[in-house]
Amino acid sequence: MTYAAAVLARCDELAAFSEEPGRLTRRFATPALWQAGERVREWMEAAGMAVRRDAIGNLIGRLGGGGLRTLLVGSHLDTVRDAGRYDGMLGVLVAIACLERLRDQGWALPYAVELLAFADEEGVRFGTGYLGSSVVAGRFDGADLERFDSAGVTLAEAVRAFGGDPDGLAGARREPADLIGYYEVHIEQGPVLEAAGFPLGVVSAIAGQTGGRVVFTGEAGHAGTVPMGLRRDALGAAAEFVTALEAVARHQEGVVATVGTVEVEPGARNVIPGRVVLSLDVRHASDSVRESVLALLRERAGSIAKARDVGFEWQVGAGTGAVDTSSTLTDLVAEAVAACGHPVLRLPSGAGHDAVMLSTIAPIAMLFVRCAGGVSHNPAESVTADDVAAAIEVTTKFLELVR
Amino acid sequence: MTYAAAVLARCDELAAFSEEPGRLTRRFATPALWQAGERVREWMEAAGMAVRRDAIGNLIGRLGGGGLRTLLVGSHLDTVRDAGRYDGMLGVLVAIACLERLRDQGWALPYAVELLAFADEEGVRFGTGYLGSSVVAGRFDGADLERFDSAGVTLAEAVRAFGGDPDGLAGARREPADLIGYYEVHIEQGPVLEAAGFPLGVVSAIAGQTGGRVVFTGEAGHAGTVPMGLRRDALGAAAEFVTALEAVARHQEGVVATVGTVEVEPGARNVIPGRVVLSLDVRHASDSVRESVLALLRERAGSIAKARDVGFEWQVGAGTGAVDTSSTLTDLVAEAVAACGHPVLRLPSGAGHDAVMLSTIAPIAMLFVRCAGGVSHNPAESVTADDVAAAIEVTTKFLELVR
Repeated sequence: MTYAAAVLARCDELAAFSEEPGRLTRRFATPALWQAGERVREWMEAAGMAVRRDAIGNLIGRLGGGGLRTLLVGSHLDTVRDAGRYDGMLGVLVAIACLERLRDQGWALPYAVELLAFADEEGVRFGTGYLGSSVVAGRFDGADLERFDSAGVTLAEAVRAFGGDPDGLAGARREPADLIGYYEVHIEQGPVLEAAGFPLGVVSAIAGQTGGRVVFTGEAGHAGTVPMGLRRDALGAAAEFVTALEAVARHQEGVVATVGTVEVEPGARNVIPGRVVLSLDVRHASDSVRESVLALLRERAGSIAKARDVGFEWQVGAGTGAVDTSSTLTDLVAEAVAACGHPVLRLPSGAGHDAVMLSTIAPIAMLFVRCAGGVSHNPAESVTADDVAAAIEVTTKFLELVR
Repeated sequence: MTYAAAVLARCDELAAFSEEPGRLTRRFATPALWQAGERVREWMEAAGMAVRRDAIGNLIGRLGGGGLRTLLVGSHLDTVRDAGRYDGMLGVLVAIACLERLRDQGWALPYAVELLAFADEEGVRFGTGYLGSSVVAGRFDGADLERFDSAGVTLAEAVRAFGGDPDGLAGARREPADLIGYYEVHIEQGPVLEAAGFPLGVVSAIAGQTGGRVVFTGEAGHAGTVPMGLRRDALGAAAEFVTALEAVARHQEGVVATVGTVEVEPGARNVIPGRVVLSLDVRHASDSVRESVLALLRERAGSIAKARDVGFEWQVGAGTGAVDTSSTLTDLVAEAVAACGHPVLRLPSGAGHDAVMLSTIAPIAMLFVRCAGGVSHNPAESVTADDVAAAIEVTTKFLELVR
């Protein structure tokens, strides 16, 4: 069996560890997550790693003696509800395959590798994204221990039941002094590589994002009796804003801007909308670009509302900043991609990843793997064996290039 | 007390007959509707009318002997939930006030008047708009007897409990041979008279209306990872359509077109909309204008969808046709308005009224009374004593002009 075929077989095997029969759901600190971790532990140990769990239940395998400088590699083992089998797991299993391949070829790395299989990235159970990597990065917020899941279990209780140590979370930060960096392989979760016809992408940055709501308040009225010229239709304003948002985003290279929800009040066929609430999601790899786009959108919303004598509220927070990847490590990833005969496409990540947290203690780099149709968070998530083989080859090359 | 003050006091008194404490809700065949009708019966009788109830429970007062030609006058006594106190009732009470005034002044009309106080126009309880007037017009559909209200009571049972005769509904048509016409006073339910500064309006026609749904089907995707250029955002298409609909309606004098509801799927802030369903409501006093507007909107929806590689479905029915008022009777209404010193503003009714049903057995005419802010179907519904006085004066004049 090729290394790629083994990776895909292991993705299939892990998909069977689920909270629900017939579909993959594996949230933080569940028996399904524990069992998946124990299977990964076996593969890590077979690849020669010494394996432990940290205070939150992240699985950490180390290859190489103490005192060596260390490269962190990782991704997560938890999933969303009704998930695909590659988002997270692929990064962990590609890393194991690379270490197996190096071992099989008799190569020894001049540094240690620590493979981090995070226990919670999706945050489905407690609403805590990046929970596993936040502990490693020393950014865990102790107040989160009092969060409840839908069954009324606190995060502290869940950590304890998972064999972890709630009181040790704040002190579990990985000391950065010996770190070379953090490297993560992940499916793209978007259609860019597929559209370009490339198997792999080199992540240039992780986009910052701002979310919020835009509210237009006009005047409800009878759909039959209020002439067009006397209307203050909140949906008319909202529609104009959605169109403006598309135009603004298209005009700025790399910006994505989305209205994903629309609430109309009162919401009846024969009543003119009096109030419309739109969700807003704006992302870009540059914070200043994102902020200028938001300022422009706010101005457009205001002028649309003013022209229609409609009120508007801009309920938009500060958002989270973009995270740059390390140019040194990322250039090595690009060099590895080119050395393996693939075209080098650098692209920002519009989704967040554990690398965001790790960037606070180490330089980061990421490799994206093409996925069918850009689909993720869905059982239809799919990658090809050829693309996984390319990811293994490039990552192995990258490990060789790292100094 | 002036006639107008008496009408307003009676509106207040009727508002107390409600199914719910603290707000006005008076649906078909409820004790509240019966009691309101019995109070109206007293006022009709005091005005010299002979009063009866027909098979559906409409209250019918007649002034004038058999053999005379007859003018029908009327409106409805039922309400929506949490209603105002003028929609329907005002027309009945203004008519009674006019007959009282004629009597006080010693005038006798050379024809009979039948005042119809309909038991169901809003159709809230059984989903049957114009139920009362449909019986008078001979257009009652026997299949409706099997409809249930929310408590599981059939329409047949409700009619029986209300003292009516379910089996007699189909045969209760008012024979048209002796009819002069049907005249109705109603609040405008729109803001046109208020905007023009006029107390009264002469209804030129009752608009036809078409309702339906327009569905745009694109492709859902991750709001962070799908670049703008690779999106097939269903909401983008829907927003463009809403804007086009506004422009088309504004371009055609008298057209009103409304999108009152928006459903977005999947409907999450971080997911690009894959499917959007819009409601559609288009009205105009001319059927051919309404149909040409609908054809144009369908074409625009199709071209918007095509340009965006998005699917669309046009789920729009045939609608109901416009109803013309009688030019003879309407000219008399206009003459009465002018004779009383008010400006004559002719306007179509965008809402439906009992007159729609009555138009199938008699020529119709309607007088609109200005209401504050165009608000109706709401406790804030309001009219002024001066405007009611004008409606009484004009209607009295109209009754004198009718031959």
